[in-house]
Amino acid sequence: MLALKKLYDRPGLWWTNDTPIPVIGAREVLVAVTHAGICGTDRHIYEWDAWSRSRVRVGVTTGHEFVGRVVQTGDAVSRVRVGQRVSAEGHVGCGQCRPCRTGNGHICQDVKILGIDRDGCFAQYVAVPEENIWPIDARIPDHVAAVFDPLGNAMHTVMAAGVSGKSVLITGVGIIGLMAVTIARAAGAARIFVSDVDRRRLDIARRLGADEAYHASEEDWTDRVRRATHHRGADVLLEMSGNPRAIQQGFAALAGGGVAALLGLPSDRVSLDLANDIIFKGATVLGINGRRMFDTWYQVEDFVLSGRIDLGPIITHQLPLDEFEQGFHLMQSGDAIKVVLAVPQENPIPCPTPASTIAAVSCSLL
Amino acid sequence: MLALKKLYDRPGLWWTNDTPIPVIGAREVLVAVTHAGICGTDRHIYEWDAWSRSRVRVGVTTGHEFVGRVVQTGDAVSRVRVGQRVSAEGHVGCGQCRPCRTGNGHICQDVKILGIDRDGCFAQYVAVPEENIWPIDARIPDHVAAVFDPLGNAMHTVMAAGVSGKSVLITGVGIIGLMAVTIARAAGAARIFVSDVDRRRLDIARRLGADEAYHASEEDWTDRVRRATHHRGADVLLEMSGNPRAIQQGFAALAGGGVAALLGLPSDRVSLDLANDIIFKGATVLGINGRRMFDTWYQVEDFVLSGRIDLGPIITHQLPLDEFEQGFHLMQSGDAIKVVLAVPQENPIPCPTPASTIAAVSCSLL
Amino acid sequence: MLALKKLYDRPGLWWTNDTPIPVIGAREVLVAVTHAGICGTDRHIYEWDAWSRSRVRVGVTTGHEFVGRVVQTGDAVSRVRVGQRVSAEGHVGCGQCRPCRTGNGHICQDVKILGIDRDGCFAQYVAVPEENIWPIDARIPDHVAAVFDPLGNAMHTVMAAGVSGKSVLITGVGIIGLMAVTIARAAGAARIFVSDVDRRRLDIARRLGADEAYHASEEDWTDRVRRATHHRGADVLLEMSGNPRAIQQGFAALAGGGVAALLGLPSDRVSLDLANDIIFKGATVLGINGRRMFDTWYQVEDFVLSGRIDLGPIITHQLPLDEFEQGFHLMQSGDAIKVVLAVPQENPIPCPTPASTIAAVSCSLL
Amino acid sequence: MLALKKLYDRPGLWWTNDTPIPVIGAREVLVAVTHAGICGTDRHIYEWDAWSRSRVRVGVTTGHEFVGRVVQTGDAVSRVRVGQRVSAEGHVGCGQCRPCRTGNGHICQDVKILGIDRDGCFAQYVAVPEENIWPIDARIPDHVAAVFDPLGNAMHTVMAAGVSGKSVLITGVGIIGLMAVTIARAAGAARIFVSDVDRRRLDIARRLGADEAYHASEEDWTDRVRRATHHRGADVLLEMSGNPRAIQQGFAALAGGGVAALLGLPSDRVSLDLANDIIFKGATVLGINGRRMFDTWYQVEDFVLSGRIDLGPIITHQLPLDEFEQGFHLMQSGDAIKVVLAVPQENPIPCPTPASTIAAVSCSLL
Repeated sequence: MLALKKLYDRPGLWWTNDTPIPVIGAREVLVAVTHAGICGTDRHIYEWDAWSRSRVRVGVTTGHEFVGRVVQTGDAVSRVRVGQRVSAEGHVGCGQCRPCRTGNGHICQDVKILGIDRDGCFAQYVAVPEENIWPIDARIPDHVAAVFDPLGNAMHTVMAAGVSGKSVLITGVGIIGLMAVTIARAAGAARIFVSDVDRRRLDIARRLGADEAYHASEEDWTDRVRRATHHRGADVLLEMSGNPRAIQQGFAALAGGGVAALLGLPSDRVSLDLANDIIFKGATVLGINGRRMFDTWYQVEDFVLSGRIDLGPIITHQLPLDEFEQGFHLMQSGDAIKVVLAVPQENPIPCPTPASTIAAVSCSLL
Repeated sequence: MLALKKLYDRPGLWWTNDTPIPVIGAREVLVAVTHAGICGTDRHIYEWDAWSRSRVRVGVTTGHEFVGRVVQTGDAVSRVRVGQRVSAEGHVGCGQCRPCRTGNGHICQDVKILGIDRDGCFAQYVAVPEENIWPIDARIPDHVAAVFDPLGNAMHTVMAAGVSGKSVLITGVGIIGLMAVTIARAAGAARIFVSDVDRRRLDIARRLGADEAYHASEEDWTDRVRRATHHRGADVLLEMSGNPRAIQQGFAALAGGGVAALLGLPSDRVSLDLANDIIFKGATVLGINGRRMFDTWYQVEDFVLSGRIDLGPIITHQLPLDEFEQGFHLMQSGDAIKVVLAVPQENPIPCPTPASTIAAVSCSLL
Repeated sequence: MLALKKLYDRPGLWWTNDTPIPVIGAREVLVAVTHAGICGTDRHIYEWDAWSRSRVRVGVTTGHEFVGRVVQTGDAVSRVRVGQRVSAEGHVGCGQCRPCRTGNGHICQDVKILGIDRDGCFAQYVAVPEENIWPIDARIPDHVAAVFDPLGNAMHTVMAAGVSGKSVLITGVGIIGLMAVTIARAAGAARIFVSDVDRRRLDIARRLGADEAYHASEEDWTDRVRRATHHRGADVLLEMSGNPRAIQQGFAALAGGGVAALLGLPSDRVSLDLANDIIFKGATVLGINGRRMFDTWYQVEDFVLSGRIDLGPIITHQLPLDEFEQGFHLMQSGDAIKVVLAVPQENPIPCPTPASTIAAVSCSLL
Repeated sequence: MLALKKLYDRPGLWWTNDTPIPVIGAREVLVAVTHAGICGTDRHIYEWDAWSRSRVRVGVTTGHEFVGRVVQTGDAVSRVRVGQRVSAEGHVGCGQCRPCRTGNGHICQDVKILGIDRDGCFAQYVAVPEENIWPIDARIPDHVAAVFDPLGNAMHTVMAAGVSGKSVLITGVGIIGLMAVTIARAAGAARIFVSDVDRRRLDIARRLGADEAYHASEEDWTDRVRRATHHRGADVLLEMSGNPRAIQQGFAALAGGGVAALLGLPSDRVSLDLANDIIFKGATVLGINGRRMFDTWYQVEDFVLSGRIDLGPIITHQLPLDEFEQGFHLMQSGDAIKVVLAVPQENPIPCPTPASTIAAVSCSLL
């Protein structure tokens, strides 16, 4: 099958057409991918930065945001059917640790991630454990279903912090930051402030409902947040940049008793004024990782179906999978926010594996 | 009256016997102090460190932990009576800001603190707003009542984090850290680990119920916490040292999904590995300031009356007020944990102010 | 002064013009009332139902929702100034009990309520403790400021339950139920269902953002809630009718793991199927009383200023105070939702009390 | 194999020795039961009361609390091994509903319960889905491991309510109520009150740490709770009787702002004074069902291993399985609290099913 792989230990991704279709286990599902989103993480892998080099297995098929159709189910699979349109949670928990067994699989310490630790969705087929499958409601279009994963990151952050009736500051309005703007608006934020280094993104944030949008280079923007909030500061900080200076500014702009939810990953240690920014303020800081399984997915579905969130200005480009290079370039230049790739479909989809190999599977074409 | 004051801009405290008895306002109460505790903060002021120089008003009467008897009440005071034995919350909130008006006066940004911003309790008399008065139950001895304030710091930290059924790591077992050990035990902690640089304190921690006590110089103590918790780490971190290395070790020993409550004040910025210590772990970090008014005071009273906390090994010394120098030296040498000073009593206590000055007050001797 | 009083132990309210202007205490404030809202509670007192007869003191000046100007302040008042435009929390807590001292004054068990236990605001002047005063932002019109109190009931219910991203059922859309509809919409509810016995109210609820509005007599309306929520039921129930049948239907329509916030007061005991409606469901039930002081007031101010709530269809009538009878009749007939009364103003407002009586006050006209 | 079954639609249980050993599915585990606890629910089934007749399938093998050894695993089982000593969560969730997919499987509305809806553990072998298996720590004795299920009910109730530093009233000290006493004590309750109709149970409650134990017939016992709590009432009510009068008394004794956790199942509707008992008090009521999967199981393990809970006075009898009639009689007479049955072991345990039937399983004897 076609697959976009990290074949070599250097920048780039490589197109292959001879990757074997994955052989699924008894509890796994094979999905024929139709659309896949390019994540900021994929860009890191493409550019092969320090984090990617230390974390990603060379040879892996990349990608983890997608929608597709189930074409095969392992023989112990009981809750997913061939033919269903599905997406999937890309974090595959171990299922045995305390987080996994207490509804907190998003912080499993032995997690395997699609497109990083195991083969991902930038391909015609992807294998996923049944537990990770998320059926997609028929009313949701493909390009939206393909980005439930990053919407989930934004949703988890917004809902963990709690924005209803609160003034909210979002530092960093890249893909997930912009998603957080529209979600926070729908979730009842009273007032939304954003900061970023890219004026185009600030404009989009305003269109999505940000009340004030500051360029990070403005000297006194945290003072402006303070003035706009009876000199208290923002009730909630959603940190989505990972940038040390933005983190520090965000904390400076946080109100006494406020909540800071940290999603952005700093590439290095960050120096904080714990006394003034957290302790004297009685602040609460929340580390946000992935999405809650599956609370966040339900919330994303509910918000998408309610029509109260606006993804129009966020999913800026849809390209065929073989134009992936252009997708990455559009993201690098800042011309694109979210790029969704359409995966070529064979018709009819061939029965993916010989019956002799996985006798127990049911195939849509047998 | 007698008072222990910060008379000069250099290390030391000075004894005066000609300080005027405070003149109370219409909503204030005058308390004849009988016992007062020496706080770590008082030691900072005594030693005149950088923080003290930047924060404390020269000329102030020091001290903020005490018990005494009400001898006078302003004419708008309705809930406190002359003769009551009382302590008081030392943080005097502005009463007008959002924290003050929503039950969060402990994080008032315009707070005035006894013994720092306004005259304190190392004296025969101290003036306190009625709202700050805490009546002391008759069953509680004076030397315990005198330390409700620091017990409150420990209690606030323990209760904010929530220790019931949890494994708890306390980094730093000075006065408040040791109080936290006995409180966490009474509050239902399943397992208590402590670390410190002083072996005598580690021994006391063990006596108070710590299951394991590590010297901070042991190379692998965080690994030992991990091994003792099914390789998960401690559910709860109570940071009470303010020491950057202890903070870093504490976060390293924190379990996924854990809660870190920060009370200790670092003297400088602290560098944190936000990605690994907070974000990937989905940790919650709580800044802890002062005591909740007056939730924490009720909790302290309840725990003290229940007989389930043990202050014996913590209140190591009681001295007359004029031996305060020895008190500080005992604390500096590590020979003392908590020192309580007994304030000399005049009998009968003189009516503190001429009737003409504050006509509206009622005096116990008139 | 003019005052609307419960002079006799029978239905009705009586107009008097010789009531003395209240004499304020040292910590109280005198407010010249400009606008006052008629509450459902006032209607109970007017109609003199069983509850009123058991609770209300004959002779009291009625009314508790208002806005006005401060004309006098007691001499221990420091945070309110003559001339300020203010409303006030009508629940006067004892200030000494555990709820009052822990930020939970709304459940003080010794509360005195304006217009019920002490003289209220259907008068030219009302006396209120300084602590209860709420300054009104200059941008908020009088008729809106006059109804902060019932907005607070609705807000407290909505925020206690938490509606962000949730499906919400409101049983009973009288004054507070309708306020809850517009607030829940602004606070991020994903979907709003309402039920009532009055079709006009159901129409208003739809205008305010209810997605579905059911007449309580429809046989299967709870099934329709269930069908609209993937057969789960509503995540949140806001019970605002006090009607036993509505309460039972509301619980029947509540989802597993749901939250029910009860504000409506049943006039008698209610029979519940605890096993099926609460226990097996793992439901959470919250008793809602009054407003949180002053969290709720800040939230009301924030939402009103954000322009995200719509009171237009709710405040249906404004009348002069002497047409109060018509106001009650409009409410009784269902032709009005909320009626706001304008109180006649003397110009200049006379200095309310002789200097000899309350020497300590400052008067706007002295 | 031997099994204790509900063979007929009348009171009693019947002993069979020709029940086929269960055939497990691909994701199931076969456990050779060594010890099983008799639950109050089993007694209902034995006595064949109205609830049992409406709920329990005639023909089912009874029992749901147990410990045993894994003897076979389905071929899709990956996290359980033959030979492990295990217990299991008896609630088998559907795995597909929103509660099941969000860590709230304990309130799955399509739950199947061991010994009620599917064959249970009063037998030599029981089949359980892999997801439900709970490995038992080697340090925990069998008779304790056998009652993790009811300990979990008590734990879930105590932890949901939150007892740390609180005054706690437990109405009904049967098996689970007594477990709640020792757990609440270990979990940090400041003060524990209990009520019941059986004086022997009240005595055991006192031994386990109840500060005061009231016979339910004492006229004024709720007043005594009030007097012992500064006239506030208990902070927390754990309702474990299901008795309408106890429920009403419990609410009457609940403090303003208190939390009531309801576990006991009333056999009929209960009449409540919602206004005075819940609404004016601002109380929170929690419906408690089963155990959280698997938060509660971890908590039970932690508390048992900590040695801080005392089951000695609770597990009063251990009998061989064939003396089950005596076990029920001891419970009915009140002479026993918890009875644990020892299941006869064959040695070697025969390979339970012919290889041809379930080719995919691994058997400890093959």
